[in-house]
Amino acid sequence: MPVSSPRKGSKTRFVHKPIIAILGGGQLGRMFIENSLRYDVEVHVLDPDPQAPCANLAHRFVQGRFDDHTTVMRFAEHADVIGIEIEHVNVDALEELQRLGKLVVPDPRALRIIQDKGLQKEFYRANNIPTAPYQLVNDRSELAALAGRFPAFLKARTGGYDGKGVMALNKTLDIERAFDGPYVLEQRTDIALELAVIVVRALNGTAVAYDPVEMVFDPKLNLVDHLQAPARIPAKTALEAKSLALKVSTALGSPGVLAVELFLTPKGELLVNECAPRAHNSGHHTIEACASSQFDQLLRVYMGWPLGDTSLRGLAAMINLVGADGTGAPMLNGADDILHLPDTFIHLYGKSETRTGRKMGHVTVLAKDQHALDQAIAVTKVHGRVVPLTRFEPFKA
Amino acid sequence: MPVSSPRKGSKTRFVHKPIIAILGGGQLGRMFIENSLRYDVEVHVLDPDPQAPCANLAHRFVQGRFDDHTTVMRFAEHADVIGIEIEHVNVDALEELQRLGKLVVPDPRALRIIQDKGLQKEFYRANNIPTAPYQLVNDRSELAALAGRFPAFLKARTGGYDGKGVMALNKTLDIERAFDGPYVLEQRTDIALELAVIVVRALNGTAVAYDPVEMVFDPKLNLVDHLQAPARIPAKTALEAKSLALKVSTALGSPGVLAVELFLTPKGELLVNECAPRAHNSGHHTIEACASSQFDQLLRVYMGWPLGDTSLRGLAAMINLVGADGTGAPMLNGADDILHLPDTFIHLYGKSETRTGRKMGHVTVLAKDQHALDQAIAVTKVHGRVVPLTRFEPFKA
Repeated sequence: MPVSSPRKGSKTRFVHKPIIAILGGGQLGRMFIENSLRYDVEVHVLDPDPQAPCANLAHRFVQGRFDDHTTVMRFAEHADVIGIEIEHVNVDALEELQRLGKLVVPDPRALRIIQDKGLQKEFYRANNIPTAPYQLVNDRSELAALAGRFPAFLKARTGGYDGKGVMALNKTLDIERAFDGPYVLEQRTDIALELAVIVVRALNGTAVAYDPVEMVFDPKLNLVDHLQAPARIPAKTALEAKSLALKVSTALGSPGVLAVELFLTPKGELLVNECAPRAHNSGHHTIEACASSQFDQLLRVYMGWPLGDTSLRGLAAMINLVGADGTGAPMLNGADDILHLPDTFIHLYGKSETRTGRKMGHVTVLAKDQHALDQAIAVTKVHGRVVPLTRFEPFKA
Repeated sequence: MPVSSPRKGSKTRFVHKPIIAILGGGQLGRMFIENSLRYDVEVHVLDPDPQAPCANLAHRFVQGRFDDHTTVMRFAEHADVIGIEIEHVNVDALEELQRLGKLVVPDPRALRIIQDKGLQKEFYRANNIPTAPYQLVNDRSELAALAGRFPAFLKARTGGYDGKGVMALNKTLDIERAFDGPYVLEQRTDIALELAVIVVRALNGTAVAYDPVEMVFDPKLNLVDHLQAPARIPAKTALEAKSLALKVSTALGSPGVLAVELFLTPKGELLVNECAPRAHNSGHHTIEACASSQFDQLLRVYMGWPLGDTSLRGLAAMINLVGADGTGAPMLNGADDILHLPDTFIHLYGKSETRTGRKMGHVTVLAKDQHALDQAIAVTKVHGRVVPLTRFEPFKA
């Protein structure tokens, strides 16, 4: 159903059924569609994988590459709004769509900065946003001369994703294993806590931030175990983190959702690690923990509606359901045990194949106190496992 | 994704992607799908209207009549679970599917009783469930002899829906306007309050009930204005209403969601008016007001999962968005004003045409106290109007 909606700088209102075209059809697109169904907008999705999580769900699904100019232009030509759920999209096409008068979220200029970790670092420096010291490096041959700065992190300027394109450089020998440049060489900093803040910015420039989220690490595996909101930090630090994230959003000047990842140093200093101009894993808890989720906010931005309420209903944790060892059709074990818990919510992403470590879903837990939260997290972690399907048994009623 | 799930009376577990086939593709099916997306089950929908709210949303949509035996059999032959979102379906086909070993919710035997208001009344009497006094009447010619029982309500035994097939008989002359029988002639009772209780019954017979909901009438129009949960009744009456609704569910012995509509008389007596063996308008607030909504519970029943938490997070109201005067493509006015309110949620059903009085969507309001609730209800009612679209304006970014 069309809904009347005032647009930035004009009295024009939506009076037809708006078409929202999303580049990327993974779990972020899927969760966006889940929420947008409530509002009866038409969501179209472009993804190269015909079995993408959004494939059977989008009002219109187009199989194709979102990094290809012609494909994106053809896909979005009838859309009113163009959004993304992944950064690696064709920005030239987005700029052209913007010139054609369409609303593009995020602003392609911001996306260009964020796509290149080098430009992103320069942007932080230019805007007085604290970030770990770094140096831009063209290729491998330049690295040896910089060994004096090790230990450091080497990051590919473009194309990195989900841990790819990042490695630690501890000694000169490590350089041999380096992927191709150009790079950002980032000084290793001491980190007390990793935080994330989701900012939402409307077309008219108003912005809101959710409470900081804390990455809780598994002390044995030294991997992110789950996320907790709000982060267990002093109120002053939480406020600083939110205002720093809002500063990044203001400097970028782009509408939409922006996830700002932060380091809190042992001295209490906050550094911006990186940001993503889209819905983000660190905001999944907002689906149940807040009246308006990050996905709901995105739709509000697209439609020019007022931004939603970001306050938390209580403590929340988000546990990623990643694929156990092996490849195959996925099955979730432990659904029963998890669903026995009150205020615990399963989200499966509808991926057709599970692979070791692949994000297959998540579980959100709400609780009134830390003890109840920890218990529900423990149950989820012990029982909730996505495994490859090895055996078929017929259904019996 | 398949999820392991124990089944009633067997150790068999779902290890393939379960297919849930729903007869009917309206708003109830749509809200069911919205929730089920989180669990990655496959939902198929049958509806005669190619533009039904579920048409672009179901994993597989089949255009066809759910009251036709062959159509239903063909539609559901590959399904694991068959559900309904409307009562007027072919029960013979459901019974045959049950014999084929498929899980059918609700039990077709219960559906047969509920489909016929006469059998439903006899069922209440046989099970000692209080209900307004009544008499079964075959046809119009028998009505004159019963004029001594007027004022009364005349109800068609079958086929009534949304106010159709019901009329008041105040005087003998009214008989001339009566629709065709057979009928239930029901004595008019004094009503202090109309209540509804949603009961959920699992395959293993465990059952839970949500808190009673109160229909709030507009004193001027004498129409249901909105629904409020929990109902403003003494705790003792609320408990009685829940246990009466559970008694109806136990007597029916059918798994699934059962909406039990009740009258509270001025003397404090509770009478069952009628029941519906499916998700119901009086349970829409559970989407936001409870951890597990009526739609979530239905999926839990289908899958053999533990039932969810029914407790209310606070006060809730549900305002139906019905079509204003006129017919045409629908537009919602006032979305901005409604979305300014925290904890207020718009649901549009995706119907392609608005008609006077047609249910086009609803708004749910959560609040901590009655004053805040009343304010949000007032804003929604003043601004939220679904009107036929009369003028097109192009989108401008």
